[in-house]
Amino acid sequence: MAKDALDLLNFKNEVFKSYLFWSSVLLLKMLLMSLLTGLQRFRTQTFANPEDCILTKKDKIAYDNPHIERVRRAHRNDMENILPFFTAGFFYVLTNPSALLAINLFRLVGVARIIHTIVYAVVVVPQPARGISFFAAFIPTVYMALQVAIFAL
Amino acid sequence: MAKDALDLLNFKNEVFKSYLFWSSVLLLKMLLMSLLTGLQRFRTQTFANPEDCILTKKDKIAYDNPHIERVRRAHRNDMENILPFFTAGFFYVLTNPSALLAINLFRLVGVARIIHTIVYAVVVVPQPARGISFFAAFIPTVYMALQVAIFAL
Amino acid sequence: MAKDALDLLNFKNEVFKSYLFWSSVLLLKMLLMSLLTGLQRFRTQTFANPEDCILTKKDKIAYDNPHIERVRRAHRNDMENILPFFTAGFFYVLTNPSALLAINLFRLVGVARIIHTIVYAVVVVPQPARGISFFAAFIPTVYMALQVAIFAL
Repeated sequence: MAKDALDLLNFKNEVFKSYLFWSSVLLLKMLLMSLLTGLQRFRTQTFANPEDCILTKKDKIAYDNPHIERVRRAHRNDMENILPFFTAGFFYVLTNPSALLAINLFRLVGVARIIHTIVYAVVVVPQPARGISFFAAFIPTVYMALQVAIFAL
Repeated sequence: MAKDALDLLNFKNEVFKSYLFWSSVLLLKMLLMSLLTGLQRFRTQTFANPEDCILTKKDKIAYDNPHIERVRRAHRNDMENILPFFTAGFFYVLTNPSALLAINLFRLVGVARIIHTIVYAVVVVPQPARGISFFAAFIPTVYMALQVAIFAL
Repeated sequence: MAKDALDLLNFKNEVFKSYLFWSSVLLLKMLLMSLLTGLQRFRTQTFANPEDCILTKKDKIAYDNPHIERVRRAHRNDMENILPFFTAGFFYVLTNPSALLAINLFRLVGVARIIHTIVYAVVVVPQPARGISFFAAFIPTVYMALQVAIFAL
């Protein structure tokens, strides 16, 4: 409980290692969204800026292509949830939580956010698939932030 | 000044504790924006994806509902300002700042961003309420980032 | 390689100092995007909320002003790339990378993202200027996240 943060930011700490692993997986997943958006842009020849319409005569500007906007919504949802998780998870490691609980929460967030992307932006799966995967990552993130707030009081 | 970062990431360091507390409060506030968006979506029966229109016959897709878009703008503004604060504040702790100044800056950012959300997305308050609350968090965040840049040179 | 994180989050560690410097520069750059958006709003008298239209009779609400939307796209692109870099770079420092490589990667990301903003939102430069500056920051960020994932395994 009253351990120094120093002793926790340590690769012998399995909780920290698990946090690093799942965070870097989610970083990679999130960065891939840019490529997925680009892929949809080239596939549909639909761009956001005049200077991007240079490859074919069919290139056009539009902001309502459903395939592109779907990927962009999934990407924004990542920013709303994965970026806060990076902070919440890091702080949570510093509260010296139970290793079993913490490692499983990190796994849950990691797997849930990967599933969220798949059912949102890769193959559209009917609800409540996206809702469940959203809350399976959202609730643990809220829990971690709450634990940190209580701990820091 | 030349203290090791190690000695600062420590729960005996009141500056670090204050940073952790206000960051976790802002994490929770920011995560709540997703629920507020969802609330507005169900209340106005307006969704962003076809697969979300499953509850009532009146469910529709639209991207211009003023209640929803207002919450989404507030949420995006959080991402533009609170997420950089997490990083700026953390680095700033590592520069071993005056405790009195640092703790009050963290409080200011925390309170200002809560007020920003209230006057933007909960009860719309005429300007300059939102402008003041915006800059009351923006200027301290810029100050912290500047201190870090100077310190790291 | 197996060094404690503790020994790396240290101002004697040139890699950490370089990370702090470039991250704080990018923080400042990114925060400036809000001011640039505001500037475009006042210049074009185009706002996002009714309560913001208070200065002149010509103030209007619109979400399709090309000057404003261009800055907002550049700002969103920053959130999609610079915010993940803060996390990826921090973790990467903890993997105790080669100083020469790490410091040059941080420089590359920092300079590339500054150029990205200039060619996107200040003076529009034909492609592939923006594409090159995007990938010059994107690829190093992916590389860092990959290194962390491998390290944490």
